[in-house]
Amino acid sequence: MPEGSPFPVQNLPYGVFTPRGSAQPRVGVAIGEFVLDLSAVWAGTPLGGDLATGSLNRFLRRGPAEWAYVRERVTNLLTDDGERRLVEANLHRIDEVKLHLPVEVADYVDFYASEQHATNLGHIFRPGGEALLPNWKHLPVGYHGRAGTVVASGTEIRRPSGQRKGPNDPAPVFGSSVKLDIEAELGFVVGAGSTLGEPVGVDDFAQHVFGAVLLNDWSARDIQAWEYVPLGPFLGKSFATSISPWVVPLAALEAARVATPVQQPQPLPYLVEKEPWGLDLELEVRLNGAVISRPPYAGMYWSPAQMLAHTTVNGASLRTGDLYGSGTISGAAADQRGSLIELTWNGRDPITLPDGSTRTFLQDGDTVTMTASAPGADGVRIGFGEVTGTIAG
Amino acid sequence: MPEGSPFPVQNLPYGVFTPRGSAQPRVGVAIGEFVLDLSAVWAGTPLGGDLATGSLNRFLRRGPAEWAYVRERVTNLLTDDGERRLVEANLHRIDEVKLHLPVEVADYVDFYASEQHATNLGHIFRPGGEALLPNWKHLPVGYHGRAGTVVASGTEIRRPSGQRKGPNDPAPVFGSSVKLDIEAELGFVVGAGSTLGEPVGVDDFAQHVFGAVLLNDWSARDIQAWEYVPLGPFLGKSFATSISPWVVPLAALEAARVATPVQQPQPLPYLVEKEPWGLDLELEVRLNGAVISRPPYAGMYWSPAQMLAHTTVNGASLRTGDLYGSGTISGAAADQRGSLIELTWNGRDPITLPDGSTRTFLQDGDTVTMTASAPGADGVRIGFGEVTGTIAG
Repeated sequence: MPEGSPFPVQNLPYGVFTPRGSAQPRVGVAIGEFVLDLSAVWAGTPLGGDLATGSLNRFLRRGPAEWAYVRERVTNLLTDDGERRLVEANLHRIDEVKLHLPVEVADYVDFYASEQHATNLGHIFRPGGEALLPNWKHLPVGYHGRAGTVVASGTEIRRPSGQRKGPNDPAPVFGSSVKLDIEAELGFVVGAGSTLGEPVGVDDFAQHVFGAVLLNDWSARDIQAWEYVPLGPFLGKSFATSISPWVVPLAALEAARVATPVQQPQPLPYLVEKEPWGLDLELEVRLNGAVISRPPYAGMYWSPAQMLAHTTVNGASLRTGDLYGSGTISGAAADQRGSLIELTWNGRDPITLPDGSTRTFLQDGDTVTMTASAPGADGVRIGFGEVTGTIAG
Repeated sequence: MPEGSPFPVQNLPYGVFTPRGSAQPRVGVAIGEFVLDLSAVWAGTPLGGDLATGSLNRFLRRGPAEWAYVRERVTNLLTDDGERRLVEANLHRIDEVKLHLPVEVADYVDFYASEQHATNLGHIFRPGGEALLPNWKHLPVGYHGRAGTVVASGTEIRRPSGQRKGPNDPAPVFGSSVKLDIEAELGFVVGAGSTLGEPVGVDDFAQHVFGAVLLNDWSARDIQAWEYVPLGPFLGKSFATSISPWVVPLAALEAARVATPVQQPQPLPYLVEKEPWGLDLELEVRLNGAVISRPPYAGMYWSPAQMLAHTTVNGASLRTGDLYGSGTISGAAADQRGSLIELTWNGRDPITLPDGSTRTFLQDGDTVTMTASAPGADGVRIGFGEVTGTIAG
């Protein structure tokens, strides 16, 4: 395996791919520069049938005991010389396969869990008002987004049109967004559903959530600013949300677990974790190849286990394929902000790229790529691969 | 057919049912006190296969030409004496079958299209502020809700728990909602999807939307009031949304089409309809059998065609099974308000039921039932059946 590969054997993220020359998508795990075809490893079994499909959903629905079994078996296959023949017959070079959206998304929720991000956006969207609203430190604020427009990494992003209205405009105008932005997030994939009316406890997180992806919550700030009061973001977000092709299982992130920042005031009991589910991830955001931000996930105020407990505390049920985003990951330093609206302070302070050009928001043709890594077992780094997208006019 | 049946031959609403003694749900249309098993009528054909399933989705995906063909054929079957044998063999009494959620919901969006309702809630939630926000007359305000908790009529509604905080409480408290409410709405079912990046024009409404259902957007006002700023309603709504079992096709509502109220200021061009899609429906809301409101749909400011055009104007795509609610239907008169928060003015003015008891919000054991009808062809009334639910503690 190449030194520094994002996909060492301690990682084993799951994706859906189609080999060159085939029309049948199937489930695989990434290992080094290869993907191992799991549908072939389990060919002829019911599990193999659930792996020979265009999404992870049927595999995920089998639940956490089966996730653990498959991970252990694949680890053994890849580390036991006696299994070499079975493995080698079913490896494909990643750069020779087509990668798909890994999950058929059921419901999509987006949170707002970075204190720094919420504070920055409060200052920008509600100048003169309270930056952090009164509920923010009591609950993970979130809202539902559009599941049908969650797209695979690499999908071209069409610049959305819509209504916008500047504070001094007499009426809204219609046109292409002039404030097209990114949000660097982590996304959590629910594998095992739950029953309507029965909340999922904060400590049952890993019984329901299978793993995590990188998520770019493309945002049209001008559309959002005009529409979002009082019912929240709608068209400013719903045109596209990109996720990475590899779902990193929680089992690969054990060494990355850290406590969240101190939560003061103390949250209500249903939000208090026994074991921490903060995650020590480092993200990198590139615009046309140049790093523009390095958001640290470890500073996120609310953990994904708290987000899940909150989502279901009213009895709302989970389904296989539910996806929820962390909200923009922003650190305290200026070069740790996970969105252009923060990096450029709503366009006031343009950033300069290596080619000498400047940006406030995205231009047509711009490509945004996000990567991330976390500490893994045995001292390795666990990579997330990347989520990327290019803006079309 | 009984006089005054909600389901005359001019209606023919679609639902999913399981006959007594069978385990196989299938698609049928309601006619009088019966449901005609369409999967049996088309048995042995590909269409029959798409009708022998647990949701309307596979039928809907076939598109508007097929919807028209099936409607015409069923009308002929039911009106041509020569077809009596085929019909009679496949009729089941509605009160002897199990009715299901008719649609596998893809994305769920809820609008806010009644000027009277938005004004009332503005007064209640933002006392002292502007009741109707500046964007309201420029665009149909909407937000995404939770598709996974849209439930069939008759499903018991568990009272949700969550955080609430009164204006004078020092901190939020946790507990069962004490302001459990209803919202009387119409829901629109998308049959034919659209392509990402390509808006659906306001005049293409009937090419994509198949029909309408009754929708009760159960709402926990205390949870909602504390959580909803700045990203909109989340747990105050996501615990359950009930819809009626029968989807009334747009083809049955031609005689109900009316112009929306005058829209001033004139909406932007993408929202201007050539042909009106306002609907002259009369709703009735019953609490434990007593009528508490008669909301008129004809007064809704934004039409469902405008809502659809707005949803997609940013390029967001539609999928078969997308469902969108009109928002609470409230008329100008006090007894035309479609929610308890309006009927009781946030609890200030309790309503009295025939048994002498009073209500501000819902009590455990309360049953809420909504019905509706519209003018149909040949002078008949087109009924929607009912959506009902009972509160469990």
